[in-house]
Amino acid sequence: MKISARNQFKGTVVEVTKGATTSHVKIDIGGQVVTASITNAAVDELGLEKGKAAIAMIKASDVLVAVE
Amino acid sequence: MKISARNQFKGTVVEVTKGATTSHVKIDIGGQVVTASITNAAVDELGLEKGKAAIAMIKASDVLVAVE
Amino acid sequence: MKISARNQFKGTVVEVTKGATTSHVKIDIGGQVVTASITNAAVDELGLEKGKAAIAMIKASDVLVAVE
Amino acid sequence: MKISARNQFKGTVVEVTKGATTSHVKIDIGGQVVTASITNAAVDELGLEKGKAAIAMIKASDVLVAVE
Amino acid sequence: MKISARNQFKGTVVEVTKGATTSHVKIDIGGQVVTASITNAAVDELGLEKGKAAIAMIKASDVLVAVE
Amino acid sequence: MKISARNQFKGTVVEVTKGATTSHVKIDIGGQVVTASITNAAVDELGLEKGKAAIAMIKASDVLVAVE
Repeated sequence: MKISARNQFKGTVVEVTKGATTSHVKIDIGGQVVTASITNAAVDELGLEKGKAAIAMIKASDVLVAVE
Repeated sequence: MKISARNQFKGTVVEVTKGATTSHVKIDIGGQVVTASITNAAVDELGLEKGKAAIAMIKASDVLVAVE
Repeated sequence: MKISARNQFKGTVVEVTKGATTSHVKIDIGGQVVTASITNAAVDELGLEKGKAAIAMIKASDVLVAVE
Repeated sequence: MKISARNQFKGTVVEVTKGATTSHVKIDIGGQVVTASITNAAVDELGLEKGKAAIAMIKASDVLVAVE
Repeated sequence: MKISARNQFKGTVVEVTKGATTSHVKIDIGGQVVTASITNAAVDELGLEKGKAAIAMIKASDVLVAVE
Repeated sequence: MKISARNQFKGTVVEVTKGATTSHVKIDIGGQVVTASITNAAVDELGLEKGKAAIAMIKASDVLVAVE
């Protein structure tokens, strides 16, 4: 499957924190850690847990840029 | 300044492509390249150009997760 | 590949309109038509054109609800 | 009222799951079911409950496209 | 019509800039100006032009917070 | 620090509601109140509480426009 998202970073799940309806999933993409806020249903369906290989995907229109 | 965005990756601009109203900016964050789609006005205001230091910021709720 | 997006609708591309950097892609998902605004680069990479099978994906946190 | 969102699908609420601050609302739009993640406050204000007519709205820039 | 978006600000269109597929619309909401990036099709359908009354709507999950 | 977000409104936090993983923060930006849905971790890191000065930031591509 190919996805239109310009940003696709392969990594490993390092933490899953479940809330009432929303979970936070941290994925180590090689030195950097990406945090995703997704539904509990998605966490269960994808079987996300510490150590599992996963890809973080971000649409280009959702990225902001800052300069110091 | 501190921003609520959970994902903040420091890097260097490697490419800026301007469209009619929207630009695509590529930022190398250390091996990985993040693509941002932002307004031309923002590109001008931040002085974004190849070689400039920049930070890619992404809200956790804008990250999707995939597994193979 | 499994994606966390709660909304995944299979359909057929019915229209692709390319802009300077951003394209609009219309996908018929069975009576309903979904419009996606994605980068020209994604359109090229996925080979999107009229008649091609495609899936529209939307994160649950990007859906608004209205009542009349 | 007219809204700029390119995607507006009329349907019927089939499920509302309330969390601590965030609810998940499922809307049947005619064969397809759309899941929305919205605030509890919005659920209360709109009186969303099973069986109520509702419209799912999605901005074109929030739609991803995939091909198999 | 009632919309789930937590942020709805009434104002007046002060500028419309059309691109190839995407327009930028500025709305004065009473001292503050909100910039929206929407499709050209939406601008045409809503008849947006300088001086027209309009409402800027933003989902709570799309707002970032910063402190100095 | 300069951020690409076209919408940056200075104000004062008037309410913080914490959920299991997600908080809702209301910021008075001078007559108007903006509601942000951000992670609990961000609330803690930024020290957000009633009375604190804060800036609401919104990307132009996340703003919808409505007309009556």
